[in-house]
Amino acid sequence: MIDAILNHRSVRNYKNDPVSQSVLQEILIAGTRASTTGNMQVYSIVITRETVIKKQLWEVHFKQNMVLQAPLVLTFCADFNRFIIWCLQRKADPGYDNFLSFITAATDALLAAQNCAVAAESKGLGICYLGTTTYNADKIIDILELPRFVVPVTTLVMGYPADNPELTDRLPLEAVVHSEKYRNYTSDDIDRLYLDKESSGLTSSLIELNSLETLAQIFTDKRYTRKDNEYFSQKYLDVIRKQGFLGG
Amino acid sequence: MIDAILNHRSVRNYKNDPVSQSVLQEILIAGTRASTTGNMQVYSIVITRETVIKKQLWEVHFKQNMVLQAPLVLTFCADFNRFIIWCLQRKADPGYDNFLSFITAATDALLAAQNCAVAAESKGLGICYLGTTTYNADKIIDILELPRFVVPVTTLVMGYPADNPELTDRLPLEAVVHSEKYRNYTSDDIDRLYLDKESSGLTSSLIELNSLETLAQIFTDKRYTRKDNEYFSQKYLDVIRKQGFLGG
Repeated sequence: MIDAILNHRSVRNYKNDPVSQSVLQEILIAGTRASTTGNMQVYSIVITRETVIKKQLWEVHFKQNMVLQAPLVLTFCADFNRFIIWCLQRKADPGYDNFLSFITAATDALLAAQNCAVAAESKGLGICYLGTTTYNADKIIDILELPRFVVPVTTLVMGYPADNPELTDRLPLEAVVHSEKYRNYTSDDIDRLYLDKESSGLTSSLIELNSLETLAQIFTDKRYTRKDNEYFSQKYLDVIRKQGFLGG
Repeated sequence: MIDAILNHRSVRNYKNDPVSQSVLQEILIAGTRASTTGNMQVYSIVITRETVIKKQLWEVHFKQNMVLQAPLVLTFCADFNRFIIWCLQRKADPGYDNFLSFITAATDALLAAQNCAVAAESKGLGICYLGTTTYNADKIIDILELPRFVVPVTTLVMGYPADNPELTDRLPLEAVVHSEKYRNYTSDDIDRLYLDKESSGLTSSLIELNSLETLAQIFTDKRYTRKDNEYFSQKYLDVIRKQGFLGG
């Protein structure tokens, strides 16, 4: 099992080959075996296969081709809707229209998603997460007809890989692991921990291509800008409110 | 291959046996192989082994004994602190003091946590998630000395199991999976999907023990009450603001 985890790469090119129903079923069952808060399972997975709906999702996922190419698109949602209906049908007063419940449900959805990802990869499939899910959650809600108390938190595209990308780099383990207490980073720590990432050939070519000075500027000025982050923050908070998780 | 995932149970009793440094290392490396947004790795893992700190964590995790018993307690945090320091040191303007960045970092942390959980279980260890992490995040911040832009999102206790609990039930797959569009639940759907859970012997004894009428009432009246959820919602939002993710 650790092999599948260690060999993970995000796959962005997929073959046409369909994924059989039995393989998909195994992946989904693996998803449902993840821990959830109080075993409430307050998440849902919406599976998209139809071209028409995939095209709509492709639009909102910034037109990333893999959304059209991969046979399966799985949208993972924080979902208290089912649980609340159950409560109401069982003379119970559900108090889940609040932020903590959103976080609880988002956590359930994300742990299930990662189980599906690992299970898929252990079956020879490739996967890629779509961070664009939180950016355009409002549009995904419309496309997938998600009711109140359901909020998309992440998306996996899934299928047989058409290529085998290199493993991507990671920071040294000591960059993300702290023993007993958080040890804050000195200037020297940062230089040392980011050295390999910053001195790679990929980094040099990215910096040149973008006419910038540092790799960090590619993140702040091009990929994850203050302006975009602030815009999408407001938008996602509005979605969470509209779906009922902020007393809205 | 999927066996470790399918055999997952939350372990609440642990042996004294320590976890070797090499096994822990493998588990942590598995954690870092999870996908993260833009490969930014905006999370941290704080490992607690010392009894003094474990006792402090045990207090804030509602005195659940497994926190003291398990040799390892891993607190997973949304962490933009390291990335922001790096940006500032590289002439880049980090725009990550907003809600979307919190969600991005929390997602990174949760996918890494689930990789660690699966890797640990595939090595014969037991794990249990502590949902209490979000309830008392403010106190965890104090105990682990987490700086601004670091917020605890979940905790795993980890060690060799002292017992082998039964697999817990799950709703049928059709309860959490939707094809193409979200299909809302009819009254009959709810009755059918919750039937097994509601008719189990465990449920009957829980209802009797709590002198309630339905299983749903155990959730709403005892385990996850409106009052608690509203209190902890406000508290967690305050933490997110105080740590810098809501323009605070």
